Amino acid sequence: MYQLNLGSLSIDEFLCEYWQKKPLLIKAGFQQFSDPLSADELAGLAQEEEIESRIVSCTEKNWDMQTGPFEDFSAFGAQGWTLLVQAVDHWHPEAAKLLDPFRFIPNWRIDDLMVSFSTPGGGVGPHLDQYDVFIIQGEGKRHWRVGMPDTSLKQLCPHPRLLQISPFKDCIDVITEPGDILYIPPGCPHDGISLENSLNYSVGFRAPAQKDLLTGLADHLVDHDISGKRFADNSRSVATSVGAITDADLQQAQQLLQQLVADNTMLPQWFGSLITRAKHELDLNEPDPHYGSDEIAEYLQEGSVLSRIGGLRCCYYQQNAASDILLFINGDQITLPANELTTAQLLADFTELTSTQNQHFIGSDERTMLLTSLINQGYWYFSE
Amino acid sequence: MYQLNLGSLSIDEFLCEYWQKKPLLIKAGFQQFSDPLSADELAGLAQEEEIESRIVSCTEKNWDMQTGPFEDFSAFGAQGWTLLVQAVDHWHPEAAKLLDPFRFIPNWRIDDLMVSFSTPGGGVGPHLDQYDVFIIQGEGKRHWRVGMPDTSLKQLCPHPRLLQISPFKDCIDVITEPGDILYIPPGCPHDGISLENSLNYSVGFRAPAQKDLLTGLADHLVDHDISGKRFADNSRSVATSVGAITDADLQQAQQLLQQLVADNTMLPQWFGSLITRAKHELDLNEPDPHYGSDEIAEYLQEGSVLSRIGGLRCCYYQQNAASDILLFINGDQITLPANELTTAQLLADFTELTSTQNQHFIGSDERTMLLTSLINQGYWYFSE
Ligand SMILES: O=C(O)CCC(=O)C(=O)O
Ligand SMILES: O=C(O)CCC(=O)C(=O)O
Ligand SMILES: [Co+2]
Ligand SMILES: [Co+2]
Repeated sequence: MYQLNLGSLSIDEFLCEYWQKKPLLIKAGFQQFSDPLSADELAGLAQEEEIESRIVSCTEKNWDMQTGPFEDFSAFGAQGWTLLVQAVDHWHPEAAKLLDPFRFIPNWRIDDLMVSFSTPGGGVGPHLDQYDVFIIQGEGKRHWRVGMPDTSLKQLCPHPRLLQISPFKDCIDVITEPGDILYIPPGCPHDGISLENSLNYSVGFRAPAQKDLLTGLADHLVDHDISGKRFADNSRSVATSVGAITDADLQQAQQLLQQLVADNTMLPQWFGSLITRAKHELDLNEPDPHYGSDEIAEYLQEGSVLSRIGGLRCCYYQQNAASDILLFINGDQITLPANELTTAQLLADFTELTSTQNQHFIGSDERTMLLTSLINQGYWYFSE
Repeated sequence: MYQLNLGSLSIDEFLCEYWQKKPLLIKAGFQQFSDPLSADELAGLAQEEEIESRIVSCTEKNWDMQTGPFEDFSAFGAQGWTLLVQAVDHWHPEAAKLLDPFRFIPNWRIDDLMVSFSTPGGGVGPHLDQYDVFIIQGEGKRHWRVGMPDTSLKQLCPHPRLLQISPFKDCIDVITEPGDILYIPPGCPHDGISLENSLNYSVGFRAPAQKDLLTGLADHLVDHDISGKRFADNSRSVATSVGAITDADLQQAQQLLQQLVADNTMLPQWFGSLITRAKHELDLNEPDPHYGSDEIAEYLQEGSVLSRIGGLRCCYYQQNAASDILLFINGDQITLPANELTTAQLLADFTELTSTQNQHFIGSDERTMLLTSLINQGYWYFSE
C-alpha cells in the first residue's frame, strides 16, 4: 500500500488549487519509497509482443525512437536513452498499486501506469501532453523542469515519431529523488533528464475529447442497432434551386442530432461503455476449467481474497436510489436492481476484496452467479 | 424529357396534401409514356458485377431471394418472379431522366432509380419502406394496393432476406398502366402483383436517420483530424465512491457533444459531404488522356453540350450573399468565392448544360480550370 503524503496540503486544497491548473512538486510524496519493480523486470515486459513499449534515444543531438518488443538493449549503450512501457498496471500487480493513492479522482478518469527506465542523460525531450499526469520518481535521480502552458511555444519534430516543443520557461526546476512526485496538468511543458539510471512511474489520466464522445455515442447506436428518427419534411415547399441545401434542411439535421445528444437514457449507457473500454490489452486470468457458482460460494465461505486484474475498468451509474444500477466492466453493461448498490460498489470501488467484503457475494444466488461469471471471464481472481 | 402531369393538382398542393402524408395514385402521370429501357436491357445490367440486383420469387407460397449478378434467367421460368436493379440512373442516361420531373424536391433528397421487371404473378410481397417513393408503371400492367401506416401490422419474414408485413387494409387498389404513377410515403404498406410482364421504375428518396447524421459528423472530425475540446474538471471534489460515474460528469460529456452539434461552421460542411456521397458505384467517364483547360475552353467555344454522369450527387450551400459557397460533389467539398453562385448553380441544378449555359465557364480561368478538373475526374462529359 502506497500512501500519498501531500505535506501541509489537503486533498481538497490540491484539487482546488492545482488539479488541472498548475504543476506541483510533491517532495517525498511517497515516503521511504520502494520500487514495485526493477529495471530488469521492466526490460522483461518490454520483450513481450502484447505490451506497448518504445525507446527514445538521443546521441549528439540526433533523436531516435524505436518501438518494442525489444530482444536486448545492449545496442543502446550506457547512456542517452529511455525505455518507456505503457499500461504496466495491466501486467504487474505490485506496480498497479501505485495507481491507488490517486483514486480521489474517480476510476474512469485514470488511464494507466506508464513506467520508464532512463540511463544517464536519457529523456524524451521537452514536450507537452494533453492529459494530467503524476510522475513518481523511483530509483535514481532525474532533473525535471516543468512550465506553465504557453501558446508561444513551437512544435518541434526532431524525428518523425517524436513531438517536442521549443525551449520553455520553467516554474519547477528540481532534481527528483525516490518518492518525489510531480503533478503536471495538460498543456504544461516538461522535460526530465536522468542523472543516473532511474525509474519513473507516470500515473496518466483519461479525458475524452469531443470526437471520442461522439464516436462513443455512434458506437452505441451501431451496437444496439438504433437508427433513430429519419429526416422528415412534410412541410416542404417547391425547391427554387434544386442543388441548394437550405438553412431549414440544415436546421432539421442539427435538431435531430440535438435530440439524440439530449437523450438522457442513452447518455450513461454509451458514456459508461466508452469510458470503461480498455485501451491496452488486458492480462485476463480466465480459470480453466471454469468455476461453478457453488465452488465460488465455497471459496468465499472459506475466506478467500479476490483481486481485480490490473487495468480492468469498472464503473457504475445509478440515477437515483430507486433506479436500476448500470454496472460497466470493460465496455460491457450489466444492469443490476436498485437495491444492489453494495454489489456495484464492491466491484467498482475496490481493486482487492477482503474475505469480509466477499461475504456479500454469498448473500444471494444472483450475486454469487454474477461474481462467478466475472471470475470465469478472467476479470477477478482469488489472490489468497 | 419526361413531364409530370398532376392533373388538377398543383405541385404546391401535392407537397402540402400528400408529400410525407398519404399515398396518391397519379393516373397517367406521364402521358404517352415510353420506356427509357427494355426488359432485355435491364437483364443486361443485372449481369454486371458492379450493379446491385436481386430476384424475388414465389412458387407455391415459397418465397426466395437471390442476389445478382445473374448469368441467365431461364431457371426462373415464365412467372412468379421479379428482377430488381438498383441505381439504374448510374448506368443508363435515358433512364436517369426519369428522376428529373421529381426535382421539385431538392437533389440531395433524391436517392436513386430502381427498376424492376416482373413476370405475371411477380412481386416482392406486401411490405413497407422507410423512404418516400414514386413508382412509375412502365410497359405492362400491375395490380397495386397501398395502405396507410398502421402500427398493428406485423413484420413477417418468409425468407431470411425478405421483410414483409401481415395483410393490410388498402386505400388505393388499382391496376396500373404505362405512365401511371403511385406516390407512397414512408411507412405505408404496399403490394404490387404483376398481371403480365411489366416494368416498374421507383424514384427513391434519401432521408438520413439520426445515426447517419451522427456518423456523418464523426467522419468529418476524423477526416479533418479534429479532436475538439477534452473533458475538463478543474473544479472536481474528492470522489466519495471512486467507481461511480456522477451526473456532473455525464452532464459535462453531454455539454461537450451539444457544443459540437451546435457548431454552425461545421454543420453545412459535414452535412453536404455526407449527403452527396454516392451509395452505389458511379460509372465515371474519365477521359484518357486528361484534357488541358485550353482544350476545354475550345470545346465550350465551339458550342459543346455537357452532361453530368448519372447518380452524381452535387449540391451547394451559401449562408448569405457575402459568404463563400460550399460546393459538394460526391462527398468532396470545393469552396468558391461568394460571387460564383452561378457556377455552383449550373453544376448543381442541372444534369445537362446547354452550349449557351456553358459559355459561363469560359468567363474566367478559375471557372475553366474547375470544369476541366471535374471533367478529368469523369464527373461531367461532352455529350454533344
Ligand atoms: O518518464 C519519462 O521519461 C516521460 C514521462 C512523461 O513525460 C509523462 O509521463 O508525461
Ligand atoms: O417494383 C417492385 O416490385 C417493388 C417496388 C417497391 O416496392 C418500391 O419501390 O418501394
Ligand atoms: Co509527458
Ligand atoms: Co416498396
